[in-house]
Amino acid sequence: MPTKYLLREDQIPRHWYNILADLASPPAPVLHPQTRKPVGPQDLAPLFPMAIIEQEMSTRREVLIPDEVRSALSLWRPSPLFRAERLERAVGTRSHIYYKYEGVSPSGSHKPNTAVAQAFYNAKEGVKRLATETGAGQWGSSLAFAGALFGLEVTVYMVRISYEQKPYRKSMMQVWGAKVVPSPSELTQAGKKVRAQHPDSTGSLGIAISEAVEDAATRGDTKYSLGSVLNHVLMHQTIIGQEALLQMERAGAMPDVVVGCVGGGSNFSGLAFPFLRDRLQGRTKTRFLAVEPDAAPSITRGKYAYDFGDTGEMTPLVKMHTLGHGFIPQGIHAGGLRYHGMAPLVSALVEHGFIEAVAYPQRTVFDAAVQFARTEGTIPAPETAHAIRAVIDEALKAKQDGSSPTILFNLSGHGLLDLAAYDSYFAGTMSDVPVPQAQIEELVAAL
Amino acid sequence: MPTKYLLREDQIPRHWYNILADLASPPAPVLHPQTRKPVGPQDLAPLFPMAIIEQEMSTRREVLIPDEVRSALSLWRPSPLFRAERLERAVGTRSHIYYKYEGVSPSGSHKPNTAVAQAFYNAKEGVKRLATETGAGQWGSSLAFAGALFGLEVTVYMVRISYEQKPYRKSMMQVWGAKVVPSPSELTQAGKKVRAQHPDSTGSLGIAISEAVEDAATRGDTKYSLGSVLNHVLMHQTIIGQEALLQMERAGAMPDVVVGCVGGGSNFSGLAFPFLRDRLQGRTKTRFLAVEPDAAPSITRGKYAYDFGDTGEMTPLVKMHTLGHGFIPQGIHAGGLRYHGMAPLVSALVEHGFIEAVAYPQRTVFDAAVQFARTEGTIPAPETAHAIRAVIDEALKAKQDGSSPTILFNLSGHGLLDLAAYDSYFAGTMSDVPVPQAQIEELVAAL
Repeated sequence: MPTKYLLREDQIPRHWYNILADLASPPAPVLHPQTRKPVGPQDLAPLFPMAIIEQEMSTRREVLIPDEVRSALSLWRPSPLFRAERLERAVGTRSHIYYKYEGVSPSGSHKPNTAVAQAFYNAKEGVKRLATETGAGQWGSSLAFAGALFGLEVTVYMVRISYEQKPYRKSMMQVWGAKVVPSPSELTQAGKKVRAQHPDSTGSLGIAISEAVEDAATRGDTKYSLGSVLNHVLMHQTIIGQEALLQMERAGAMPDVVVGCVGGGSNFSGLAFPFLRDRLQGRTKTRFLAVEPDAAPSITRGKYAYDFGDTGEMTPLVKMHTLGHGFIPQGIHAGGLRYHGMAPLVSALVEHGFIEAVAYPQRTVFDAAVQFARTEGTIPAPETAHAIRAVIDEALKAKQDGSSPTILFNLSGHGLLDLAAYDSYFAGTMSDVPVPQAQIEELVAAL
Repeated sequence: MPTKYLLREDQIPRHWYNILADLASPPAPVLHPQTRKPVGPQDLAPLFPMAIIEQEMSTRREVLIPDEVRSALSLWRPSPLFRAERLERAVGTRSHIYYKYEGVSPSGSHKPNTAVAQAFYNAKEGVKRLATETGAGQWGSSLAFAGALFGLEVTVYMVRISYEQKPYRKSMMQVWGAKVVPSPSELTQAGKKVRAQHPDSTGSLGIAISEAVEDAATRGDTKYSLGSVLNHVLMHQTIIGQEALLQMERAGAMPDVVVGCVGGGSNFSGLAFPFLRDRLQGRTKTRFLAVEPDAAPSITRGKYAYDFGDTGEMTPLVKMHTLGHGFIPQGIHAGGLRYHGMAPLVSALVEHGFIEAVAYPQRTVFDAAVQFARTEGTIPAPETAHAIRAVIDEALKAKQDGSSPTILFNLSGHGLLDLAAYDSYFAGTMSDVPVPQAQIEELVAAL
């Protein structure tokens, strides 16, 4: 049975940790999509409230969390940290495995950590309406929830294939009062353009981002909200790692390796960055392992280059690991990991040798998910299960070489809205087709 | 934003509270289905392990919770208690509304509180396999989870209409390794009999109970497990109210009224009994309000009489509020409340004037559910939403008469597996047909 480490409510962090303050060199600047010159705050003003733009560019190490945001977070935070003793026994390892559980939020993942912050700052600056995109729906439902708390209208452009195949996250968004639009749609020029070329397009995160950005940029009452990738989003997630630091201290252990799945990079960074701070400052030798799906291997097989965040080339250009903004991943069940790029901060830390990456096909990921559910009790989200696969493999490797590392990972969400994926796994109908090397080479050659 | 009251892990209760010790008169005896004489422990031995039979009949006030059970409970307990300040403002009441949130368990409801205890005692006495029934799947998934933790095989007879219409709870059970059989099935005499008479039968909880009881009674390696109604089940749930007592004390408030939805009665009793103890002993005047669906109004419209727990007349006879064991409720979305009877302990306390009851049609229940989700953030299960409806109405009544009571209710589960019900609500396709009085009269006339 797992051992649980709880915190008191007054131990919800009071600051976000900004890793920019601890980087040896400043990150590559964000470039304007037309001029290709570094963007300034005014370039971003049509999309984001000023408080968010300041956070995106800030190099202050600690940024105060407003009381209203801490109060909203307290609905589910502090989140518990567990030692996975039953999983350890099942794997037969002497490694100690710990996990931070973010599925306790109302939408079931870590996403509301930044959604409530973003909704708060927008509401405070008088914004009436938010536009965003969502893949499988984790982010869209989290922003719908946050919008309900802070009185904002929310419109979510949802990748059409998910809109049709995953009706229940759409239902969640509607319960919280959000409007959900299948993307590509006829509501934006970006959407119309795709539909003119590909009338049967099932959409992609890149297309949906274009639609949401256009919606926000062309309406005075509306701003845009992004659930991953950007610096401020990663910073909002650092409350995960700050809590985990306290909890690991209480457990009397410190991780030798920190593991998280990566789509845009936010849940991984949220757990890892507060521990990375000690590594960057030379106090530890902790390893950091980002786990991506075989179907969207931006770190392990992509190029570190300037690229657009969206398919429609509307976003600024950021330097990141990318498969090319024209890349459309296969329809794996871990919809939250189907993105062509990677957070610039994660990418830079990979380049500097602080973060390692590994990619897995989905069937072996679900093997791990089921083993976890049957030993530790919680059914993980398919995205999260990528981290579990890597954790089990780390533990098995340690068993072979006779070591017993302490492993910490982010159980970033539960899988109660993803049970159809488990059905497919048990029915043996889950397929894995590696991305052809030629496809990646063609797309990144243009960058 | 809600104010949260957390407990420390060492504040998980160490004893269950047995309300039998505080009743002025002993409850009506349980009768053998053939002899109609009071049953003894040996009569129940084919179905339950001895530890459970002892608990069922015990009059000790406090029963020690084994360490292994407390350890399993600690995966999600202590559960949080919140003050619903945003809901209070939305309702415009001066009442203070508190809720205990049981949706934090791996299966998303209060059911695992007893599932882990039952699985533990069965495993300890060498039982290899458990048979049970489930309606919408809350109980079946909870026992599947508990079976995985304690190494027991679990077979769940699932009401056929839910098996077909609610595939995802079935998926959960399979993730945890349980076998799920649509009921009525061809695996039991009870199932075959129903199918012979009604080949298209979509099943009922009463039929599924008959199948599971027969399965257990006819196999030496198998015992039966029930998720509500019986004394030991209600006792296992009293950890909810014991924690809530400590949390209300921390909040500096005591409830004037305690509210819960009732199907068999276990989540209501789990919260209410520890508070009822003070009322029974004359220390408080707290009211207790059980909320049932219009479609299965056992307390508000049934008869207090001896009846079978199942359709097949295989269970012992218990004295309870019942609509007759031939009653098959309409297919409302709150599948967990579709039961013809009521826990004997709840029924006796209704008869003695300690518990009140009210019934609601489902559309008004979903009005309350959506209001709750948009103010407090958590999407409630349809069953739980019955309690929320009653709470809001209590607060509105108080507003009219100028009082400001403290209201406490059990948010017994989340609705993330019930989003199709919300879709139906928004689509305006949710119907309410009152149960004809003649139907009830005919069924209870035979009792």
